[in-house]
Amino acid sequence: MIIVLKPDHDEEDLHRIIRRLEDLGLRAHISKGEHRTIVGAIGDERVLREVPIESLPGVESVLPILKPYKLVSREFKRENTVINVNGRQIGGEHIHVFAGPCAVESREVLEEIAESLLPSGVCFLRGGAFKPRTSPYSFQGWGEKALKFLAGVRDRTGLQVVTELMDPRDTVLVCKYADVVQIGTRNMQNFRLLTEVGNIDKPVILKRGLCSTIKEFLMSAEYILAQGNERVILCERGIRTFETETRNTLDISAVPLLKQLTHLPVIVDPSHAVGRVDLVPAMTKAAIAAGADGLLIEVHVRPEEALSDGPQSLRPSAFTKLMEECRLVAKAVGRSI
Amino acid sequence: MIIVLKPDHDEEDLHRIIRRLEDLGLRAHISKGEHRTIVGAIGDERVLREVPIESLPGVESVLPILKPYKLVSREFKRENTVINVNGRQIGGEHIHVFAGPCAVESREVLEEIAESLLPSGVCFLRGGAFKPRTSPYSFQGWGEKALKFLAGVRDRTGLQVVTELMDPRDTVLVCKYADVVQIGTRNMQNFRLLTEVGNIDKPVILKRGLCSTIKEFLMSAEYILAQGNERVILCERGIRTFETETRNTLDISAVPLLKQLTHLPVIVDPSHAVGRVDLVPAMTKAAIAAGADGLLIEVHVRPEEALSDGPQSLRPSAFTKLMEECRLVAKAVGRSI
Amino acid sequence: MIIVLKPDHDEEDLHRIIRRLEDLGLRAHISKGEHRTIVGAIGDERVLREVPIESLPGVESVLPILKPYKLVSREFKRENTVINVNGRQIGGEHIHVFAGPCAVESREVLEEIAESLLPSGVCFLRGGAFKPRTSPYSFQGWGEKALKFLAGVRDRTGLQVVTELMDPRDTVLVCKYADVVQIGTRNMQNFRLLTEVGNIDKPVILKRGLCSTIKEFLMSAEYILAQGNERVILCERGIRTFETETRNTLDISAVPLLKQLTHLPVIVDPSHAVGRVDLVPAMTKAAIAAGADGLLIEVHVRPEEALSDGPQSLRPSAFTKLMEECRLVAKAVGRSI
Amino acid sequence: MIIVLKPDHDEEDLHRIIRRLEDLGLRAHISKGEHRTIVGAIGDERVLREVPIESLPGVESVLPILKPYKLVSREFKRENTVINVNGRQIGGEHIHVFAGPCAVESREVLEEIAESLLPSGVCFLRGGAFKPRTSPYSFQGWGEKALKFLAGVRDRTGLQVVTELMDPRDTVLVCKYADVVQIGTRNMQNFRLLTEVGNIDKPVILKRGLCSTIKEFLMSAEYILAQGNERVILCERGIRTFETETRNTLDISAVPLLKQLTHLPVIVDPSHAVGRVDLVPAMTKAAIAAGADGLLIEVHVRPEEALSDGPQSLRPSAFTKLMEECRLVAKAVGRSI
Repeated sequence: MIIVLKPDHDEEDLHRIIRRLEDLGLRAHISKGEHRTIVGAIGDERVLREVPIESLPGVESVLPILKPYKLVSREFKRENTVINVNGRQIGGEHIHVFAGPCAVESREVLEEIAESLLPSGVCFLRGGAFKPRTSPYSFQGWGEKALKFLAGVRDRTGLQVVTELMDPRDTVLVCKYADVVQIGTRNMQNFRLLTEVGNIDKPVILKRGLCSTIKEFLMSAEYILAQGNERVILCERGIRTFETETRNTLDISAVPLLKQLTHLPVIVDPSHAVGRVDLVPAMTKAAIAAGADGLLIEVHVRPEEALSDGPQSLRPSAFTKLMEECRLVAKAVGRSI
Repeated sequence: MIIVLKPDHDEEDLHRIIRRLEDLGLRAHISKGEHRTIVGAIGDERVLREVPIESLPGVESVLPILKPYKLVSREFKRENTVINVNGRQIGGEHIHVFAGPCAVESREVLEEIAESLLPSGVCFLRGGAFKPRTSPYSFQGWGEKALKFLAGVRDRTGLQVVTELMDPRDTVLVCKYADVVQIGTRNMQNFRLLTEVGNIDKPVILKRGLCSTIKEFLMSAEYILAQGNERVILCERGIRTFETETRNTLDISAVPLLKQLTHLPVIVDPSHAVGRVDLVPAMTKAAIAAGADGLLIEVHVRPEEALSDGPQSLRPSAFTKLMEECRLVAKAVGRSI
Repeated sequence: MIIVLKPDHDEEDLHRIIRRLEDLGLRAHISKGEHRTIVGAIGDERVLREVPIESLPGVESVLPILKPYKLVSREFKRENTVINVNGRQIGGEHIHVFAGPCAVESREVLEEIAESLLPSGVCFLRGGAFKPRTSPYSFQGWGEKALKFLAGVRDRTGLQVVTELMDPRDTVLVCKYADVVQIGTRNMQNFRLLTEVGNIDKPVILKRGLCSTIKEFLMSAEYILAQGNERVILCERGIRTFETETRNTLDISAVPLLKQLTHLPVIVDPSHAVGRVDLVPAMTKAAIAAGADGLLIEVHVRPEEALSDGPQSLRPSAFTKLMEECRLVAKAVGRSI
Repeated sequence: MIIVLKPDHDEEDLHRIIRRLEDLGLRAHISKGEHRTIVGAIGDERVLREVPIESLPGVESVLPILKPYKLVSREFKRENTVINVNGRQIGGEHIHVFAGPCAVESREVLEEIAESLLPSGVCFLRGGAFKPRTSPYSFQGWGEKALKFLAGVRDRTGLQVVTELMDPRDTVLVCKYADVVQIGTRNMQNFRLLTEVGNIDKPVILKRGLCSTIKEFLMSAEYILAQGNERVILCERGIRTFETETRNTLDISAVPLLKQLTHLPVIVDPSHAVGRVDLVPAMTKAAIAAGADGLLIEVHVRPEEALSDGPQSLRPSAFTKLMEECRLVAKAVGRSI
């Protein structure tokens, strides 16, 4: 950590800073330049993050040198983390698709959707049992009944179940049915929930918050790993910007950036990002070309009747066609799908 | 709700839309213009929010006419809601200040801070017992021990206790000690937590999410009112923008805008918004001039030793001076503080 | 255009609005719903854009139905515009690459760079003669001298020259040397400059403003077409968001969205968008997969000596490798490069 | 400037960096920590801004220490710059109001508006002769005719003329009539225009760009001062964020922040920032409370007939009332208006 002093600091200010660093077990390295004196803190700067050095007299600014996350970083673990979900490998050469409706609506519709996914080689069925909705008057999901429908479909089709956990009190219930637990974008900084899924024995898809920086995103993953659960899949799903033509702006550059900073698998959810079905195919292919390890895509047999997010759901025929196109793009970048 | 049809829609598309509206108990009002046909849905458009009309063939776009919130709106209730907290009125002529440290650190420091607030006429002591922190390695708050310290200070000073609830499982515990429960910015769309505080008998300060629109903010308040708790205080605390000189950008225009749209009291937290103590005084006065009903201000006796958010905490002497300046500004806009 | 009346409007308000519409040659279509009265303006709503209907008494809000741009829209012209630049077709099946240094530094370096591009089949050499720089103390470009270097390289290699015009007073000068004129991101709403290039006989690359919506971007293109120059190439180059790890956030969804809204070719500049060379390859491939008609890529023989934007410039070896990878991705989406 | 080396850099990388710094006349100060080696560049780091140190092998990141602007900074000049405009002092104790219509429409309307401003003690009449409009089909201003109307009103009323310059080719023309020249938000980084007004003998109001950081804003002011014109007035006028209820988000914290970083006067334009007349009074008072040196407010006698920005224009009666309220707030913060 670099501490930049104000041009008008006095000697006592400097000594106070040095003493403070030494109290924390660090060494101070002083460098007097023409315009500024700077103090480098030698040692593990992580102990400094808790200390408001900026509030000491004479300090102009504080510049961290090390990244605040550790367990999730490439520096900590060089090789890619490949997550095994009952035999399917996420984060390896094969790009996995997590498809299905936004919310589980009925057993029949869910089965119809699931059937439509099988010919494309999909292994994961996504569907919400608990839905975080902006309005208290919107459909909030069928809860355990929906989880049972999902498990029933798994029994018949072999599709692995991916579903969202919203409340720490539902952890046991959701884990009873889910193969992969999803933490939604609004809960990316629900730290109690992160701690909770840090203690379960299931892989976790962690969605990036709507206005979370890459650093905050990785810190939230760090919460889960710090508890002992190393099976975290990061999901870029669009960030909030000033543009209103799309629901959010899909930050595709997050894919290569995250692959560089962390060893964890990175997937993309183009459906929620753009919020309109006409743009989903192009963005899906872009995500693959940029190096995504997986895709979360909404599929519904009758989007115009969906209880949630219909406008962004692909019909099965469009999904099948898209998967064929994706196969070519994946091959072009040395992957399979 | 206005449904705009594509220029190339056919008659069957139009009939399908009309049938759909009629099935939902609405009437369709058709208007054929030179460039577009539009269909107005007559009736309570709220039933339409659940229906993905955009996915029907022939639909170009859908424009809502009514606001999605109801109980919180000025249309629903004309007069200001004034919230009584053991005799103090929030939302009336008097501007209340909620002051104190970001996190409760020790009984001694808390008492020292509390003592320093009394001469300025402060009635509410804020302090975190449970702290949502970006890093799992940061201080997370002392939990119940901190709540007891807060309650102890209340017993001695009469300062009412304001503290954050992060986890639905802590609701009973927090309500045992708090006079006002705070929902933090990261939990503004933690809908389970909102539902929880919708069922308690305490006033709730709801902080605006970092990237929440005014509409989403009001929808989150609606969650609480919809459960029966009408004592909600809205708190603007800065939104995330591209600017990095300040931690967030304090959206002062949210104050007059919210006062127009809702009957609930609106307060401002300049400390978290700007994240630097040197800008807090100017922003506090701006908030008052813009019509804020209250202020949330961080005060610490030794900011350079604070375990959380030291750089944005005012020292008691600066706080006292600021309150004096605020009294003049409050008077200039016909209020007291 | 839809005019929504306030719930408490009176009859005179309604009549005033109707008269105003009729004065403008429009017809009013009134629809009284349960909660709101709305007035539809029948006719060419473009005449209304100039009239502040929102300021009339009794008006709650005004919702436009038609898009504000015309000549650039797909509705106006169905088929793709293909722009011929001395025999190279932009906007057709072939994806063109505009490569070169950010700024032209010297004849020798420019020639070295140009030579390195030829084996990859590049047809367009980009290089700045006039550089818009944030700081008045930064290198501002060599002006006409640089234009001459560019023209010299064209004479020897056949590479077409793409260079930026910053000032209407330089129009004749720049057009003397350039084959394609570029309008930079900071000038996207320099309407005088847009008008100027609307009157030249050269294709124009119009870069999206740092915080311009898609609608504003298309309106700026409309300025050029409205003057008679229909050879406009739109360039997405990243928008400003809260994320700081990348210089800007490349909005890849702008590509399929623009291709849907307009008939003009759409290219992508991944170099300026991310600002770091390590992310350029992934983003280039993503742009192709999303449907881009061309790419603007910075290449420099010695980035560490570049006078502008070195950190985002690819070395020739990396560029050659990237072009090989891009060929596979282009083929996968039915294009060539 | 601090250069952070990658953990896996080798000795040759370090030596290359040192040589590079020494070639530039700087000294290198090396500090080897536990996790990173860092190199401090001792000397005037401004020479380094032009050099892409990030592109040298072994470099992880580069952290500037000094601010990139100089002439505009408080470090360069401690005391406030007070700008004299024919006897009116901007930047002193008195807060000046620049009021008038967005665009000059006709001599009669302009005179009517001007008359209405006089009783409130306004000294500056603002009105656009050249209007930058998003649409090529919108009213673009009456040009010199409007300038003449403005000058005519000045002759009769003594109101000083403030008007926008959009094109370097109009500089002489605009300066012939204007007392203060305005550079609009879309031209904040039109560097040629900045250079132009750096060479005139008139005060310049420089409006902050829609998505410009404070640093970029000050760099644009630096362009003007670097040419020799030190009479620059900075104007905060709202930044673009995700919120859509207001046209832009007025960043009031820019006022105290700018007053801290620069010696130049800072004014606020609440009208353009919020874009709706109902929020203008609250934001005007907030700006004063935050320390603004002046205000730019749109006033129109008949907003519903305005050719530009009617919805944000105050009627004279509302303006007069607002000025009375402002007088109280100004007094509360030790100023007059």
